[in-house]
Amino acid sequence: MPELRQEPITKKWVIIATERSKRPSDFLDFSVKKEKRKGGTCPFCKGNESKTPPEIMAYREEGTKPDTPGWWVRVVPNLFPALAKAGAEEADAQNFYVTKPGVGAHEVLVESPEHDSSLESHSLQHVKEIFHAWRDRYQALINQDPIEYIQIFKNEGSIAGASLEHPHSQLIATPLIPPVVDEELRGAQEYYQQEGKCIYCEMIKHEIEVGTRVVVHNDHFLAFCPYASRFPFETWIIPKQHQAGFDLINNDQLQNLSLIVQEVTQKIKGSLNEPPYNMVLHSAPAGYSHAADYHWHLEILPRLTIIAGFEWGTGIIINPTTPESAAEYLREANTNLVQEKERLSWQQVH
Amino acid sequence: MPELRQEPITKKWVIIATERSKRPSDFLDFSVKKEKRKGGTCPFCKGNESKTPPEIMAYREEGTKPDTPGWWVRVVPNLFPALAKAGAEEADAQNFYVTKPGVGAHEVLVESPEHDSSLESHSLQHVKEIFHAWRDRYQALINQDPIEYIQIFKNEGSIAGASLEHPHSQLIATPLIPPVVDEELRGAQEYYQQEGKCIYCEMIKHEIEVGTRVVVHNDHFLAFCPYASRFPFETWIIPKQHQAGFDLINNDQLQNLSLIVQEVTQKIKGSLNEPPYNMVLHSAPAGYSHAADYHWHLEILPRLTIIAGFEWGTGIIINPTTPESAAEYLREANTNLVQEKERLSWQQVH
Repeated sequence: MPELRQEPITKKWVIIATERSKRPSDFLDFSVKKEKRKGGTCPFCKGNESKTPPEIMAYREEGTKPDTPGWWVRVVPNLFPALAKAGAEEADAQNFYVTKPGVGAHEVLVESPEHDSSLESHSLQHVKEIFHAWRDRYQALINQDPIEYIQIFKNEGSIAGASLEHPHSQLIATPLIPPVVDEELRGAQEYYQQEGKCIYCEMIKHEIEVGTRVVVHNDHFLAFCPYASRFPFETWIIPKQHQAGFDLINNDQLQNLSLIVQEVTQKIKGSLNEPPYNMVLHSAPAGYSHAADYHWHLEILPRLTIIAGFEWGTGIIINPTTPESAAEYLREANTNLVQEKERLSWQQVH
Repeated sequence: MPELRQEPITKKWVIIATERSKRPSDFLDFSVKKEKRKGGTCPFCKGNESKTPPEIMAYREEGTKPDTPGWWVRVVPNLFPALAKAGAEEADAQNFYVTKPGVGAHEVLVESPEHDSSLESHSLQHVKEIFHAWRDRYQALINQDPIEYIQIFKNEGSIAGASLEHPHSQLIATPLIPPVVDEELRGAQEYYQQEGKCIYCEMIKHEIEVGTRVVVHNDHFLAFCPYASRFPFETWIIPKQHQAGFDLINNDQLQNLSLIVQEVTQKIKGSLNEPPYNMVLHSAPAGYSHAADYHWHLEILPRLTIIAGFEWGTGIIINPTTPESAAEYLREANTNLVQEKERLSWQQVH
C-alpha cells in the first residue's frame, strides 16, 4: 500500500507510491517516452474495456453492459494507484519520522472512446459530458471518510506527465489537506478577516476592470493570466459568482465552463504549436464547499519552461513572459473555426 | 529590470524576468534544446572570454590578465539575469497587487576552461577549487544590502534546465527570504524551541544509527537519501558538525565536501546512465550564519520523474522509489576507478 511520509522540517508530505514502485534499475533508460498504444493495445480505447479494472461509472447507451463498448465517458480505478482505496493497514511506526497509510482514491476518467480525439476536437456537448463526470465523481467522494481533499487534473503531452496518449483526466482523493490548498485557504481567510470579502471575487472584479490580463469571459466564467503567473501563458478559469466547492457547480455553469475551457485550450494549442500542459482544479476541502472565503478555479499551466535548481531551492519560479503579453497574444489567437460555428449555434440554443 | 511579483493569496513571489524576456512567439518551438556550442562558439570556453560580460573573479595563473585565458575557474555576470545587480528604479505601483524591483545578483561560475569536462571527471583538487569559488562569491555577497539570501545551484542536463552544456554553476542573490527557506527555518526553529536541539543534527544522528538510507560518509560529511525523498535517488549532503551558513565552511571541510560530492555524483551518473540532475545549496539567510537552529546542506535531485498536474495542484510529490532502495543501490554503485586511485592517494596526503 502506498505510504505518506512527512518531511520533518517543513512538515510537507510526499507519497512513496509502492504500488507503482520502480526499482532503481527501472530508471536506466530515463528518456521521456510517449506510449503510442494505438488500436489493439491502448487500455482506454473502446473494445479494450477488459484491459482496465472494472469500471466505477460510465455514461453509456441504454442497454449496454458495464465494461463493454457503448460508453462515451468512462471512469476506472488507476491500475497503479498513488493512493489506495481501502486497507486498515497501519504504517510502520518510526521513532524520528512521521508516516501515514496512503489511503484515498485514484481514478482515471477516460474522456472519449476515441484514441485520437482531444478536449479541443470534441463537440461542445461532449466536453460538457466530461465535466459532468468530474462533478459526479467529485460529489460521490468528497464526503467519504477519510477523504479531506479531491484533486482532479489532466496531463496533456509526455513532458506534462501524460504516460498514455488516449485523452483522460485523473482524480486523486487525499486523506489530508495538501500544502498548496492549505496555503491558499490561509491567505484567503486572512484577507476575508481583514476585508470582509472573498479575495478571489475582488481579483475577478479588478481583472475585468483592468482588462490587460483577460483572455476571454462569458456569462459565468472569466479566463485570465494571473498577475504573478509562474508559467508563460498560465491561465486561470474562475466562476464569476462566488462558489467555494466544485461540487456546487450547476448545469448552466457546466455549459459555460465547457465553452470557455475549450476556447482557451484551442487558443493555447492552436497558437503555440500544441504545447504540453497541465489542467488543475483547485477546490475547497471536504466540508468547506459553502465557505465565504474560498473560491474554486481551474488552472491551465502550459509547460514551456523548465523547473530547475533555483526553483527547487527557493520556491520562487522564474517566468520569462509577462502575463500581460501572454493574455494579449491569447486574446488575439484564433479558436478552431469549425468549432466556432458550432459554438455559435450552440450558444443560441443553450 | 526584472520584477518580483507577489501572488496575492499565498503571498509567494514570482520573478518576471523581463531581461530574459520571451515574447509569446518565441515559444513556437518548445522542444527541449541542448545547445551544443563547441569549440569556437561556446562563451564559457577558454579563448572566448570576450563573449561574456567582464569577469567578476577568476582563479588564474599569475601574470595573466582578466578576460583572457590562463584561468581554471571563472565567475561572470549572467548575460540574462533573473535579478539585476543595481537600479533604484521603483516598481510600478499596483492598486491590488504587490510588486518589488527585481534587485539582487545573478552570476555564472564557469567550472573549467574545458568544454567536455564535468564535476565527475575533474581532479579532486579541481573540484575543491570550484567549491572554493562558491565560498568566495557567497562570502562576498551575503552581507551586501539589499541581499537577504544566496542561492547557489547547478543544473546538469537540458531536462534539468541547463541551457549551455559547458560545466557551470550559478548564484542568484535575492532581496527576500525565499518561501522554501522560510519554511525550513520555521520548522527548524519550532523543533529547537521544543527540543533545544538542531533538528538537522538529530536527523544526522538518527540516519547514521539506522543506516538504511546512508549512501556514504566521511570525516566531515554525510550523504543520505532523505526519509521523505521527493525524487528517486534524491541525496542530501550535510556537514556532520553543526553549521548554519555555508560561508563558515573551512578548508578541511571543503576538501571533504569535494570528495563526497564527487563520490555521490559519480555513483549517480555511473549507475543511472548519466541522468539530468539539479544540485541545490540550502543555507542560512543573511545574518543567520551562526544560528543554532539551522544547518546548511546540499541537495542532489536527479530528474527522472515528471512534476505533473497532481503535484502542481497539491504540492505533494509522488515518488515511485523508496529512499531505502535508492540508498542501497547507490551504496553498491561504483565510483570511477581511475578517480578512486587518485582519491586514495589524495586522502593520504590531506
